[in-house]
Amino acid sequence: MTAGTLLYAQSGGVTAVINATAAAVIEAARARRIKVLAGRNGILGVLREDLIDTTRESAAAVRALAQTPGGAFGSCRVKLKSLDEDRARYERLLAVLRAHDVRWFLYNGGNDSADTALKVSQLAATYDYPLTCIGVPKTVDNDLAITDCCPGFGSAAKYTAVSVREAALDVAAMAETSTKVFVYEAMGRHAGWLAAAGGLAGQGPDDAPQVILFPERAYDENDFIDKVQATVARVGWCVVVASEGIRTADGRFVADAGAGKDSFGHTQLGGVAAHLAARVKDRLGMKVHWTLPDYLQRSARHIASKTDLDQARAVGKAAVQFALKGLNATMPVIVRTSDQPYRWKIEAVALDKIANREKTMPADFIRKDGYGITAAARRYLEPLIRGEAYPAYARDGLPKYVALRNVPATRTLPEWTG
Amino acid sequence: MTAGTLLYAQSGGVTAVINATAAAVIEAARARRIKVLAGRNGILGVLREDLIDTTRESAAAVRALAQTPGGAFGSCRVKLKSLDEDRARYERLLAVLRAHDVRWFLYNGGNDSADTALKVSQLAATYDYPLTCIGVPKTVDNDLAITDCCPGFGSAAKYTAVSVREAALDVAAMAETSTKVFVYEAMGRHAGWLAAAGGLAGQGPDDAPQVILFPERAYDENDFIDKVQATVARVGWCVVVASEGIRTADGRFVADAGAGKDSFGHTQLGGVAAHLAARVKDRLGMKVHWTLPDYLQRSARHIASKTDLDQARAVGKAAVQFALKGLNATMPVIVRTSDQPYRWKIEAVALDKIANREKTMPADFIRKDGYGITAAARRYLEPLIRGEAYPAYARDGLPKYVALRNVPATRTLPEWTG
Repeated sequence: MTAGTLLYAQSGGVTAVINATAAAVIEAARARRIKVLAGRNGILGVLREDLIDTTRESAAAVRALAQTPGGAFGSCRVKLKSLDEDRARYERLLAVLRAHDVRWFLYNGGNDSADTALKVSQLAATYDYPLTCIGVPKTVDNDLAITDCCPGFGSAAKYTAVSVREAALDVAAMAETSTKVFVYEAMGRHAGWLAAAGGLAGQGPDDAPQVILFPERAYDENDFIDKVQATVARVGWCVVVASEGIRTADGRFVADAGAGKDSFGHTQLGGVAAHLAARVKDRLGMKVHWTLPDYLQRSARHIASKTDLDQARAVGKAAVQFALKGLNATMPVIVRTSDQPYRWKIEAVALDKIANREKTMPADFIRKDGYGITAAARRYLEPLIRGEAYPAYARDGLPKYVALRNVPATRTLPEWTG
Repeated sequence: MTAGTLLYAQSGGVTAVINATAAAVIEAARARRIKVLAGRNGILGVLREDLIDTTRESAAAVRALAQTPGGAFGSCRVKLKSLDEDRARYERLLAVLRAHDVRWFLYNGGNDSADTALKVSQLAATYDYPLTCIGVPKTVDNDLAITDCCPGFGSAAKYTAVSVREAALDVAAMAETSTKVFVYEAMGRHAGWLAAAGGLAGQGPDDAPQVILFPERAYDENDFIDKVQATVARVGWCVVVASEGIRTADGRFVADAGAGKDSFGHTQLGGVAAHLAARVKDRLGMKVHWTLPDYLQRSARHIASKTDLDQARAVGKAAVQFALKGLNATMPVIVRTSDQPYRWKIEAVALDKIANREKTMPADFIRKDGYGITAAARRYLEPLIRGEAYPAYARDGLPKYVALRNVPATRTLPEWTG
């Protein structure tokens, strides 16, 4: 083994392909004879000195990791404060990095994780500890700045487009005597990328989804109900794709409006689709079905996009290259060089241009009436869901997803009680 | 063309593979040079003389039909009353059958559709009209009597098992600092077959789903909450699969309990998963996510089971054979001849043994504690989700689902105003 350790950790919501990035990191490091430790549950594992020794995993297990959804080392939702506010935690981090001779830190996540990677790099500089920090992009929300798209999004987008097309065929068959309206709730608290991907399910104005609700546009119930009613009158049925983050003009989340009390008087959890479905039923008297795929949409490795998988692997490999080149406080981002044919490359971008920013849909991706996607959006989205990348299946009809051994590295420090 | 027409129609909730049955019917009839008309929206199309001339579809379109979910000719939820109560409708039916020289009537559906096929055969006998009626099985609920399993179920079961396994990997990664409990709502108003299929996602007692709720067992909130709490204490997280049809000991549907008023005071649609998630959150204070796949689970042709697809085609082909043999008022059912290796064959069974009956899970398929499946259930279920049968995909990353031309056959009767 080469001197020095590479530390990799996963952060934030996991995806269908974040483990493909992890596999690429491990494989690239192994090729250079560099030891990779992984933080168990992201930065928390680093604080706790709960590190996984990936050298104990076989090459076959690492290959299988590339086709396994979820986060194989565990993830976390933890945001570090500034160096001054959170000094004890930072000092502990540094002690753990030192104890394991960590020279390269790769943090795989979204906006917040880019911020954490940046802070760890500032910490190292402050304490003169030689460390190269790399943020590795990942998020189904596709809301990272600078990068053309985010690994994880393409697969969730493919799941969304395929599922909407399939459900629409069902609704079309049932509409005459049963369900006339179907509401699909897509992830996306602030940005409508996944809802927009649902728009790929159809081409013409009467193809499903006939109505898309974006968080980038204020939700107006009367206008929405009119759209649905007109669509049912014209087509016979209507499929709605709604982003979980839609709000009324006064800024209230519609999902929160959906929350209330159930018939026992207990709190009911909110949801956009449930709310919209109930409003359609009440106001138009039509039979409505609705779906909330929730985690299914971001863990659906069985319908992963080949483009997405390729990019997830590419950012992992590039992250190791950038780390070894000492490109500190950067992120490998995806740069689109051509729409047709679709071409892309990886470049290094400074983390401070990415951390804590958020990319919503460009205005020209949303149709003028606010309820659909434009040709520009299709040009952008379509290559991202292109290609199938099926996992291998076992005889029992289920995908061969791997459970790693996740052997802990030997602890050398006192327990952390922070 | 041979003299006489074969009339095919789809009824009830559609599935990922009912069109594969339709394709097999059309192909088998074409091989015998028999003309196939299809009722638009099931029996309604017959009443309205709204019949689709399938001879206008190309061989390629019929092949593509076999990989397209939904119901290509439209379905309906209509149940005929007895001959005496519904005489006008029956006389109209007979007039339409005569007008198009229909000799064979194939009705593709569940319990209710078997009943309709049986009634149409009684009608024909009463009026001395020469007609052979065949019920063709289909239902994701797997609740038809006699047949070992129902075409449509295997694919929905595979979707369920794969989705639960994938979501569980997500929850396991997030549990440390975020979601600890995940609730998956499966279809099944009276029978827990799809919830049971979710059980295939794991093997050991700590594998997801750790808790399954069946409609065949009374739901007890305290016991459920205890199970979830104990699982989280032991495993760190818990995945629950709940059948939409679970009820409390007094017979109340838990899904109805989930209904209530939203924060605007509007009616909220119920749902088992939303209710259970809210109860876990309230009582255990844990972060919970939940999913309601709804139509996605029954239209997911992209993850169809090969076994299911084979059986869907086999019952279509057999239905034509039985029709031509004059096996009136029968259904081609699936008979399992061996578990290991899994072997099955098709046999004809009288419709009156199937119509209006319902098959729930055998008691020995549910674990003694009521929250899981037994080895016997696994032996039964596992072959049904075996094998992948992917649709072809286009360059745009979406499956090539066909839209038939659905050219109407020429009408010869006055409009129906019933």
